[in-house]
Amino acid sequence: MMNKLRVEVCYTPSDYSYFKNDFEIVVVIDVLRATSAICAAFENGVKSIIPVPTIEEALEYKKKGYLVGAERKGQIVDGFDFGNSPFSFMKDECKDKEIVLTTTNGTMSIEVSKEAENVVIGSFLNLKSLCDWLLKSNKNILCLCSGWQDKFNLEDTICGGAIASILIESNKYTSNEDSTIAAICLYKNAKTSPFGFLKASSHRRRLKNLNLNKDIKFCLTPNQTSVIPILKNGKLVKL
Amino acid sequence: MMNKLRVEVCYTPSDYSYFKNDFEIVVVIDVLRATSAICAAFENGVKSIIPVPTIEEALEYKKKGYLVGAERKGQIVDGFDFGNSPFSFMKDECKDKEIVLTTTNGTMSIEVSKEAENVVIGSFLNLKSLCDWLLKSNKNILCLCSGWQDKFNLEDTICGGAIASILIESNKYTSNEDSTIAAICLYKNAKTSPFGFLKASSHRRRLKNLNLNKDIKFCLTPNQTSVIPILKNGKLVKL
Repeated sequence: MMNKLRVEVCYTPSDYSYFKNDFEIVVVIDVLRATSAICAAFENGVKSIIPVPTIEEALEYKKKGYLVGAERKGQIVDGFDFGNSPFSFMKDECKDKEIVLTTTNGTMSIEVSKEAENVVIGSFLNLKSLCDWLLKSNKNILCLCSGWQDKFNLEDTICGGAIASILIESNKYTSNEDSTIAAICLYKNAKTSPFGFLKASSHRRRLKNLNLNKDIKFCLTPNQTSVIPILKNGKLVKL
Repeated sequence: MMNKLRVEVCYTPSDYSYFKNDFEIVVVIDVLRATSAICAAFENGVKSIIPVPTIEEALEYKKKGYLVGAERKGQIVDGFDFGNSPFSFMKDECKDKEIVLTTTNGTMSIEVSKEAENVVIGSFLNLKSLCDWLLKSNKNILCLCSGWQDKFNLEDTICGGAIASILIESNKYTSNEDSTIAAICLYKNAKTSPFGFLKASSHRRRLKNLNLNKDIKFCLTPNQTSVIPILKNGKLVKL
Protein backbone atom coordinates (compact mmCIF):
# COMPACT_ATOMS: atom_id res chain seq x y z
CA MET A 1 0.00 0.00 0.00
CA MET A 2 1.15 3.47 -0.86
CA ASN A 3 2.11 5.55 2.16
CA LYS A 4 -0.61 8.10 2.72
CA LEU A 5 0.07 11.77 3.16
CA ARG A 6 -0.84 13.43 6.46
CA VAL A 7 -3.38 16.12 7.22
CA GLU A 8 -3.71 17.41 10.78
CA VAL A 9 -5.54 20.16 12.63
CA CYS A 10 -3.64 22.35 15.11
CA TYR A 11 -5.93 24.36 17.41
CA THR A 12 -3.88 27.46 18.22
CA PRO A 13 -0.79 29.39 17.10
CA SER A 14 0.90 28.49 20.39
CA ASP A 15 0.49 24.77 19.64
CA TYR A 16 2.15 25.24 16.24
CA SER A 17 5.59 24.50 17.69
CA TYR A 18 4.51 20.88 18.37
CA PHE A 19 3.61 20.36 14.71
CA LYS A 20 5.70 22.61 12.56
CA ASN A 21 8.44 20.41 11.16
CA ASP A 22 6.22 17.76 9.58
CA PHE A 23 4.19 19.73 7.05
CA GLU A 24 5.01 21.38 3.73
CA ILE A 25 1.72 23.28 3.50
CA VAL A 26 0.14 25.30 6.31
CA VAL A 27 -3.48 26.37 5.83
CA VAL A 28 -4.12 29.36 8.10
CA ILE A 29 -7.74 29.53 9.28
CA ASP A 30 -9.47 32.41 11.06
CA VAL A 31 -13.11 32.00 10.08
CA LEU A 32 -14.37 34.95 12.14
CA ARG A 33 -13.15 36.95 10.33
CA ALA A 34 -9.60 37.48 9.04
CA THR A 35 -9.22 34.61 6.57
CA SER A 36 -12.81 34.98 5.35
CA ALA A 37 -12.13 38.68 4.74
CA ILE A 38 -8.90 37.86 2.89
CA CYS A 39 -10.74 35.45 0.57
CA ALA A 40 -13.50 38.01 0.00
CA ALA A 41 -10.88 40.67 -0.76
CA PHE A 42 -9.21 38.64 -3.53
CA GLU A 43 -12.58 37.60 -4.95
CA ASN A 44 -13.28 41.30 -5.24
CA GLY A 45 -10.12 42.29 -7.04
CA VAL A 46 -7.72 43.31 -4.25
CA LYS A 47 -4.16 43.01 -5.61
CA SER A 48 -2.33 41.89 -2.48
CA ILE A 49 -2.58 41.93 1.30
CA ILE A 50 0.32 42.56 3.66
CA PRO A 51 -0.40 40.84 6.99
CA VAL A 52 1.32 42.49 9.96
CA PRO A 53 1.27 41.28 13.56
CA THR A 54 1.32 44.62 15.40
CA ILE A 55 -0.66 47.86 15.43
CA GLU A 56 2.64 49.78 15.28
CA GLU A 57 3.59 48.21 11.94
CA ALA A 58 0.07 48.82 10.64
CA LEU A 59 0.37 52.50 11.58
CA GLU A 60 3.66 52.82 9.72
CA TYR A 61 1.96 51.60 6.54
CA LYS A 62 -0.97 53.94 7.11
CA LYS A 63 1.42 56.89 7.30
CA LYS A 64 2.82 55.83 3.94
CA GLY A 65 -0.67 56.05 2.42
CA TYR A 66 -1.75 52.39 2.40
CA LEU A 67 -5.33 51.29 3.00
CA VAL A 68 -5.06 49.56 6.38
CA GLY A 69 -7.47 47.26 8.20
CA ALA A 70 -6.87 46.87 11.94
CA GLU A 71 -8.95 44.80 14.34
CA ARG A 72 -8.52 43.95 18.00
CA LYS A 73 -11.09 42.05 20.06
CA GLY A 74 -13.64 42.20 17.28
CA GLN A 75 -13.55 45.98 16.84
CA ILE A 76 -11.92 48.45 14.48
CA VAL A 77 -8.84 49.95 16.12
CA ASP A 78 -9.08 53.72 16.67
CA GLY A 79 -7.44 55.67 13.88
CA PHE A 80 -7.95 53.05 11.18
CA ASP A 81 -10.52 53.00 8.39
CA PHE A 82 -11.78 49.47 8.80
CA GLY A 83 -11.24 46.25 10.70
CA ASN A 84 -11.63 42.69 9.49
CA SER A 85 -15.21 42.63 8.24
CA PRO A 86 -15.28 40.92 4.82
CA PHE A 87 -17.62 43.65 3.58
CA SER A 88 -14.97 46.31 4.17
CA PHE A 89 -12.74 44.58 1.62
CA MET A 90 -15.46 44.38 -1.00
CA LYS A 91 -15.69 48.10 -1.66
CA ASP A 92 -14.67 49.65 -4.99
CA GLU A 93 -11.84 51.63 -3.41
CA CYS A 94 -10.09 48.30 -2.58
CA LYS A 95 -9.90 47.03 -6.16
CA ASP A 96 -6.35 46.57 -7.50
CA LYS A 97 -4.93 47.92 -4.25
CA GLU A 98 -2.29 46.58 -1.90
CA ILE A 99 -3.95 46.47 1.52
CA VAL A 100 -2.40 46.05 4.98
CA LEU A 101 -4.14 44.00 7.67
CA THR A 102 -3.58 43.33 11.36
CA THR A 103 -6.02 41.29 13.47
CA THR A 104 -6.23 39.77 16.96
CA ASN A 105 -5.65 36.18 15.93
CA GLY A 106 -5.41 35.55 12.20
CA THR A 107 -2.35 37.61 11.40
CA MET A 108 -0.64 35.97 14.41
CA SER A 109 -1.10 32.53 12.81
CA ILE A 110 0.43 33.80 9.58
CA GLU A 111 3.32 35.25 11.59
CA VAL A 112 4.13 31.99 13.43
CA SER A 113 3.89 29.86 10.28
CA LYS A 114 5.58 32.17 7.78
CA GLU A 115 8.72 30.01 7.53
CA ALA A 116 6.71 27.03 6.25
CA GLU A 117 7.27 25.95 2.65
CA ASN A 118 3.78 27.14 1.67
CA VAL A 119 1.28 29.20 3.63
CA VAL A 120 -2.22 29.45 2.16
CA ILE A 121 -5.43 30.98 3.46
CA GLY A 122 -8.42 28.80 4.26
CA SER A 123 -12.02 29.62 5.12
CA PHE A 124 -15.46 28.29 4.37
CA LEU A 125 -15.60 30.78 1.48
CA ASN A 126 -12.95 28.94 -0.55
CA LEU A 127 -13.38 25.44 0.97
CA LYS A 128 -13.96 23.44 -2.20
CA SER A 129 -11.39 25.09 -4.44
CA LEU A 130 -8.79 25.02 -1.66
CA CYS A 131 -9.35 21.28 -1.07
CA ASP A 132 -9.17 20.56 -4.81
CA TRP A 133 -5.80 22.31 -4.91
CA LEU A 134 -4.55 20.62 -1.71
CA LEU A 135 -5.50 17.20 -3.08
CA LYS A 136 -3.29 17.82 -6.11
CA SER A 137 -0.37 19.11 -4.03
CA ASN A 138 1.12 15.76 -2.93
CA LYS A 139 2.26 17.45 0.29
CA ASN A 140 1.62 16.98 4.01
CA ILE A 141 -0.86 19.56 5.22
CA LEU A 142 -1.40 21.29 8.55
CA CYS A 143 -4.61 23.24 9.17
CA LEU A 144 -3.55 25.95 11.62
CA CYS A 145 -6.51 27.40 13.53
CA SER A 146 -6.09 30.89 14.90
CA GLY A 147 -8.19 30.36 18.01
CA TRP A 148 -9.04 33.24 20.31
CA GLN A 149 -6.09 34.75 22.14
CA ASP A 150 -4.31 31.42 22.05
CA LYS A 151 -7.31 29.42 23.23
CA PHE A 152 -9.23 26.84 21.21
CA ASN A 153 -12.20 28.14 19.21
CA LEU A 154 -15.04 26.26 17.57
CA GLU A 155 -15.41 27.99 14.22
CA ASP A 156 -11.79 27.53 13.11
CA THR A 157 -11.81 23.95 14.35
CA ILE A 158 -14.87 22.97 12.32
CA CYS A 159 -13.34 24.58 9.23
CA GLY A 160 -10.13 22.62 9.82
CA GLY A 161 -12.27 19.53 10.37
CA ALA A 162 -14.03 20.15 7.06
CA ILE A 163 -10.73 20.34 5.17
CA ALA A 164 -9.29 17.25 6.94
CA SER A 165 -12.50 15.35 6.34
CA ILE A 166 -12.50 16.08 2.60
CA LEU A 167 -8.83 15.14 2.22
CA ILE A 168 -9.17 11.91 4.21
CA GLU A 169 -12.28 10.86 2.29
CA SER A 170 -10.19 11.08 -0.89
CA ASN A 171 -8.18 8.15 0.53
CA LYS A 172 -4.92 9.91 -0.26
CA TYR A 173 -4.60 11.39 3.23
CA THR A 174 -4.65 10.11 6.79
CA SER A 175 -4.22 11.65 10.25
CA ASN A 176 -2.46 10.54 13.46
CA GLU A 177 -3.61 13.22 15.84
CA ASP A 178 -6.55 13.20 18.23
CA SER A 179 -7.02 16.91 17.53
CA THR A 180 -7.83 16.00 13.93
CA ILE A 181 -10.26 13.20 14.88
CA ALA A 182 -12.04 15.63 17.21
CA ALA A 183 -12.13 18.43 14.61
CA ILE A 184 -13.73 16.09 12.06
CA CYS A 185 -16.29 14.89 14.61
CA LEU A 186 -17.16 18.49 15.52
CA TYR A 187 -17.44 19.41 11.83
CA LYS A 188 -19.84 16.51 11.23
CA ASN A 189 -21.97 17.67 14.15
CA ALA A 190 -21.94 21.24 12.83
CA LYS A 191 -22.31 20.48 9.15
CA THR A 192 -26.06 20.77 8.66
CA SER A 193 -26.27 24.04 10.58
CA PRO A 194 -22.96 25.70 11.40
CA PHE A 195 -24.72 28.91 12.46
CA GLY A 196 -26.87 26.98 14.94
CA PHE A 197 -23.93 24.86 16.12
CA LEU A 198 -21.93 27.98 16.89
CA LYS A 199 -24.82 29.63 18.70
CA ALA A 200 -23.24 29.15 22.11
CA SER A 201 -19.67 29.71 20.96
CA SER A 202 -17.75 32.44 22.68
CA HIS A 203 -16.86 34.25 19.47
CA ARG A 204 -20.42 34.30 18.20
CA ARG A 205 -21.57 35.78 21.48
CA ARG A 206 -18.75 38.31 21.23
CA LEU A 207 -19.60 39.35 17.65
CA LYS A 208 -23.35 39.21 18.24
CA ASN A 209 -22.88 41.85 20.91
CA LEU A 210 -21.21 43.96 18.25
CA ASN A 211 -24.13 43.46 15.83
CA LEU A 212 -22.12 41.37 13.45
CA ASN A 213 -24.57 38.56 12.70
CA LYS A 214 -24.49 39.49 9.01
CA ASP A 215 -20.72 38.99 8.97
CA ILE A 216 -21.02 35.65 10.77
CA LYS A 217 -23.56 34.28 8.30
CA PHE A 218 -21.40 35.38 5.39
CA CYS A 219 -18.27 33.78 6.89
CA LEU A 220 -20.04 30.45 7.45
CA THR A 221 -21.37 30.19 3.89
CA PRO A 222 -19.14 27.78 1.95
CA ASN A 223 -17.84 28.00 -1.61
CA GLN A 224 -18.43 31.63 -2.47
CA THR A 225 -15.10 31.97 -4.24
CA SER A 226 -12.41 29.91 -5.94
CA VAL A 227 -9.48 32.10 -4.89
CA ILE A 228 -6.58 30.61 -2.95
CA PRO A 229 -4.55 33.34 -1.26
CA ILE A 230 -0.90 32.34 -0.77
CA LEU A 231 1.97 33.99 1.09
CA LYS A 232 4.83 35.10 -1.19
CA ASN A 233 7.67 37.21 0.20
CA GLY A 234 5.59 38.48 3.11
CA LYS A 235 2.56 39.37 0.99
CA LEU A 236 -0.63 37.45 0.35
CA VAL A 237 -1.41 37.16 -3.34
CA LYS A 238 -3.80 35.15 -5.47
CA LEU A 239 -2.40 31.75 -6.40
CA MET B 1 -31.32 35.15 38.41
CA MET B 2 -28.60 33.72 40.55
CA ASN B 3 -25.16 33.97 39.00
CA LYS B 4 -24.12 30.54 37.87
CA LEU B 5 -20.83 28.97 38.74
CA ARG B 6 -18.39 28.13 35.95
CA VAL B 7 -17.10 24.79 34.77
CA GLU B 8 -14.56 24.66 31.93
CA VAL B 9 -12.39 22.11 30.19
CA CYS B 10 -8.70 22.87 29.55
CA TYR B 11 -7.08 20.50 27.06
CA THR B 12 -3.43 20.43 28.12
CA PRO B 13 -1.15 21.33 31.03
CA SER B 14 0.48 23.99 28.86
CA ASP B 15 -2.89 25.72 28.34
CA TYR B 16 -3.42 25.84 32.10
CA SER B 17 -1.78 29.27 32.34
CA TYR B 18 -4.69 30.78 30.35
CA PHE B 19 -7.22 29.48 32.87
CA LYS B 20 -5.63 29.19 36.23
CA ASN B 21 -6.76 32.23 38.16
CA ASP B 22 -10.50 31.72 37.79
CA PHE B 23 -11.10 28.35 39.43
CA GLU B 24 -11.06 27.16 43.02
CA ILE B 25 -11.18 23.47 42.14
CA VAL B 26 -8.99 21.77 39.52
CA VAL B 27 -9.99 18.26 38.46
CA VAL B 28 -6.92 16.56 37.01
CA ILE B 29 -7.80 14.00 34.33
CA ASP B 30 -5.52 11.40 32.74
CA VAL B 31 -7.88 8.62 31.74
CA LEU B 32 -5.20 6.43 30.13
CA ARG B 33 -4.02 5.73 32.75
CA ALA B 34 -2.68 7.77 35.67
CA THR B 35 -5.86 9.15 37.21
CA SER B 36 -7.74 5.89 36.61
CA ALA B 37 -4.92 4.05 38.39
CA ILE B 38 -5.00 6.53 41.29
CA CYS B 39 -8.75 5.98 41.75
CA ALA B 40 -8.28 2.20 41.57
CA ALA B 41 -5.47 2.44 44.12
CA PHE B 42 -7.60 4.22 46.72
CA GLU B 43 -10.54 1.91 46.08
CA ASN B 44 -8.18 -0.91 46.90
CA GLY B 45 -6.88 0.46 50.17
CA VAL B 46 -3.74 2.38 49.23
CA LYS B 47 -3.05 4.94 52.00
CA SER B 48 -1.60 7.78 49.94
CA ILE B 49 0.13 8.53 46.65
CA ILE B 50 3.00 10.95 46.20
CA PRO B 51 2.96 12.28 42.61
CA VAL B 52 6.38 13.37 41.37
CA PRO B 53 7.15 14.95 37.99
CA THR B 54 10.58 13.44 37.31
CA ILE B 55 12.21 10.00 37.17
CA GLU B 56 15.03 11.34 39.35
CA GLU B 57 12.66 12.16 42.22
CA ALA B 58 10.97 8.79 41.79
CA LEU B 59 14.37 7.05 42.08
CA GLU B 60 15.17 8.92 45.31
CA TYR B 61 11.96 7.54 46.84
CA LYS B 62 12.75 4.06 45.58
CA LYS B 63 16.13 4.16 47.31
CA LYS B 64 14.32 5.02 50.55
CA GLY B 65 12.25 1.84 50.22
CA TYR B 66 8.97 3.19 48.80
CA LEU B 67 6.85 1.29 46.29
CA VAL B 68 7.27 3.37 43.14
CA GLY B 69 5.33 3.37 39.87
CA ALA B 70 7.07 4.99 36.91
CA GLU B 71 5.73 5.24 33.39
CA ARG B 72 7.01 6.99 30.29
CA LYS B 73 5.44 6.69 26.83
CA GLY B 74 3.07 3.96 28.01
CA GLN B 75 5.78 1.66 29.37
CA ILE B 76 7.28 0.82 32.77
CA VAL B 77 10.56 2.70 33.24
CA ASP B 78 13.58 0.40 33.61
CA GLY B 79 14.45 -0.19 37.25
CA PHE B 80 10.93 0.29 38.61
CA ASP B 81 8.45 -2.37 39.73
CA PHE B 82 5.41 -1.11 37.87
CA GLY B 83 4.07 1.71 35.71
CA ASN B 84 0.63 3.22 35.65
CA SER B 85 -1.58 0.21 34.97
CA PRO B 86 -4.55 0.33 37.38
CA PHE B 87 -4.09 -3.38 38.01
CA SER B 88 -0.61 -2.79 39.44
CA PHE B 89 -2.17 -0.72 42.21
CA MET B 90 -4.77 -3.34 43.10
CA LYS B 91 -2.33 -5.91 44.46
CA ASP B 92 -2.29 -6.88 48.14
CA GLU B 93 1.21 -5.48 48.65
CA CYS B 94 -0.16 -1.98 47.95
CA LYS B 95 -2.76 -1.96 50.74
CA ASP B 96 -2.18 0.66 53.45
CA LYS B 97 1.01 1.77 51.71
CA GLU B 98 2.28 5.16 50.66
CA ILE B 99 3.08 4.84 46.96
CA VAL B 100 5.09 7.14 44.68
CA LEU B 101 4.05 7.71 41.08
CA THR B 102 5.53 9.47 38.06
CA THR B 103 3.91 9.36 34.61
CA THR B 104 4.32 10.98 31.19
CA ASN B 105 1.35 13.30 31.43
CA GLY B 106 -0.82 12.92 34.53
CA THR B 107 1.73 13.82 37.17
CA MET B 108 2.66 16.85 35.04
CA SER B 109 -0.94 18.15 35.30
CA ILE B 110 -0.83 17.75 39.07
CA GLU B 111 2.50 19.59 39.11
CA VAL B 112 1.25 22.62 37.12
CA SER B 113 -1.99 22.92 39.12
CA LYS B 114 -0.67 22.20 42.61
CA GLU B 115 -1.05 25.81 43.78
CA ALA B 116 -4.82 25.74 43.15
CA GLU B 117 -7.11 25.89 46.19
CA ASN B 118 -8.21 22.28 45.62
CA VAL B 119 -6.79 19.64 43.30
CA VAL B 120 -8.83 16.46 42.95
CA ILE B 121 -8.45 13.42 40.72
CA GLY B 122 -11.05 12.65 38.05
CA SER B 123 -11.60 9.63 35.83
CA PHE B 124 -14.48 7.59 34.49
CA LEU B 125 -14.00 5.28 37.49
CA ASN B 126 -15.22 7.89 40.00
CA LEU B 127 -17.35 10.02 37.64
CA LYS B 128 -20.64 9.98 39.52
CA SER B 129 -19.31 10.40 43.06
CA LEU B 130 -16.91 13.11 41.92
CA CYS B 131 -19.72 15.07 40.20
CA ASP B 132 -21.98 14.69 43.26
CA TRP B 133 -19.21 16.19 45.39
CA LEU B 134 -18.42 18.95 42.87
CA LEU B 135 -22.10 19.92 42.72
CA LYS B 136 -22.10 20.49 46.48
CA SER B 137 -18.86 22.46 46.43
CA ASN B 138 -20.21 25.84 45.36
CA LYS B 139 -16.91 26.53 43.61
CA ASN B 140 -15.77 27.26 40.07
CA ILE B 141 -14.32 24.14 38.51
CA LEU B 142 -11.65 23.54 35.89
CA CYS B 143 -11.27 20.10 34.31
CA LEU B 144 -7.57 19.91 33.44
CA CYS B 145 -6.88 17.28 30.81
CA SER B 146 -3.38 15.86 30.73
CA GLY B 147 -3.20 15.37 26.98
CA TRP B 148 -0.31 13.56 25.37
CA GLN B 149 3.02 15.37 25.61
CA ASP B 150 1.22 18.71 25.69
CA LYS B 151 -1.06 17.91 22.76
CA PHE B 152 -4.84 17.47 22.91
CA ASN B 153 -6.10 13.93 23.50
CA LEU B 154 -9.55 12.48 23.05
CA GLU B 155 -9.99 10.30 26.14
CA ASP B 156 -9.28 13.06 28.68
CA THR B 157 -11.42 15.50 26.72
CA ILE B 158 -14.49 13.24 26.71
CA CYS B 159 -14.05 12.66 30.45
CA GLY B 160 -13.86 16.44 31.01
CA GLY B 161 -16.89 16.77 28.73
CA ALA B 162 -18.78 14.22 30.85
CA ILE B 163 -18.07 16.17 34.05
CA ALA B 164 -18.96 19.54 32.47
CA SER B 165 -22.10 18.08 30.96
CA ILE B 166 -23.33 16.69 34.31
CA LEU B 167 -22.61 19.95 36.14
CA ILE B 168 -24.27 22.12 33.49
CA GLU B 169 -27.35 19.89 33.37
CA SER B 170 -27.78 20.55 37.09
CA ASN B 171 -28.46 24.17 36.11
CA LYS B 172 -26.06 25.43 38.79
CA TYR B 173 -23.13 25.65 36.36
CA THR B 174 -22.43 27.29 33.03
CA SER B 175 -19.43 27.58 30.69
CA ASN B 176 -17.97 30.39 28.56
CA GLU B 177 -15.30 28.53 26.68
CA ASP B 178 -15.46 26.89 23.25
CA SER B 179 -13.18 24.14 24.55
CA THR B 180 -15.94 23.16 26.97
CA ILE B 181 -18.68 23.21 24.30
CA ALA B 182 -16.51 20.99 22.11
CA ALA B 183 -15.66 18.60 24.96
CA ILE B 184 -19.35 18.14 25.75
CA CYS B 185 -20.17 17.56 22.07
CA LEU B 186 -17.38 14.97 21.81
CA TYR B 187 -18.56 13.28 25.01
CA LYS B 188 -22.10 13.02 23.66
CA ASN B 189 -20.76 11.44 20.47
CA ALA B 190 -18.65 9.00 22.50
CA LYS B 191 -21.16 8.24 25.25
CA THR B 192 -22.81 5.08 23.96
CA SER B 193 -19.50 3.46 23.05
CA PRO B 194 -16.37 5.21 24.35
CA PHE B 195 -14.22 2.21 23.43
CA GLY B 196 -15.45 2.35 19.84
CA PHE B 197 -15.21 6.15 19.70
CA LEU B 198 -11.58 6.00 20.78
CA LYS B 199 -10.73 3.28 18.30
CA ALA B 200 -8.77 5.65 16.08
CA SER B 201 -7.34 7.73 18.90
CA SER B 202 -3.59 8.00 19.05
CA HIS B 203 -3.34 6.79 22.62
CA ARG B 204 -5.46 3.72 22.03
CA ARG B 205 -3.29 2.79 19.10
CA ARG B 206 -0.24 3.37 21.28
CA LEU B 207 -1.53 1.20 24.15
CA LYS B 208 -2.98 -1.45 21.86
CA ASN B 209 0.50 -1.99 20.47
CA LEU B 210 1.58 -2.61 24.05
CA ASN B 211 -1.21 -5.17 24.55
CA LEU B 212 -3.09 -2.98 26.97
CA ASN B 213 -6.66 -3.35 25.74
CA LYS B 214 -7.68 -4.79 29.12
CA ASP B 215 -6.42 -1.61 30.82
CA ILE B 216 -8.24 0.58 28.33
CA LYS B 217 -11.58 -1.15 28.84
CA PHE B 218 -11.17 -0.90 32.61
CA CYS B 219 -10.31 2.83 32.42
CA LEU B 220 -13.36 3.58 30.27
CA THR B 221 -15.85 1.83 32.58
CA PRO B 222 -17.61 4.48 34.65
CA ASN B 223 -18.57 4.46 38.33
CA GLN B 224 -16.49 1.62 39.68
CA THR B 225 -15.60 3.52 42.84
CA SER B 226 -16.82 6.37 45.05
CA VAL B 227 -13.34 7.56 46.10
CA ILE B 228 -12.29 11.15 45.45
CA PRO B 229 -8.51 11.50 45.69
CA ILE B 230 -7.46 14.99 46.77
CA LEU B 231 -4.04 16.68 46.97
CA LYS B 232 -3.02 17.62 50.54
CA ASN B 233 0.50 18.87 51.26
CA GLY B 234 1.92 17.28 48.14
CA LYS B 235 0.26 13.89 48.69
CA LEU B 236 -2.90 12.45 47.24
CA VAL B 237 -5.22 11.10 49.92
CA LYS B 238 -8.82 9.92 50.07
CA LEU B 239 -11.21 12.80 50.67
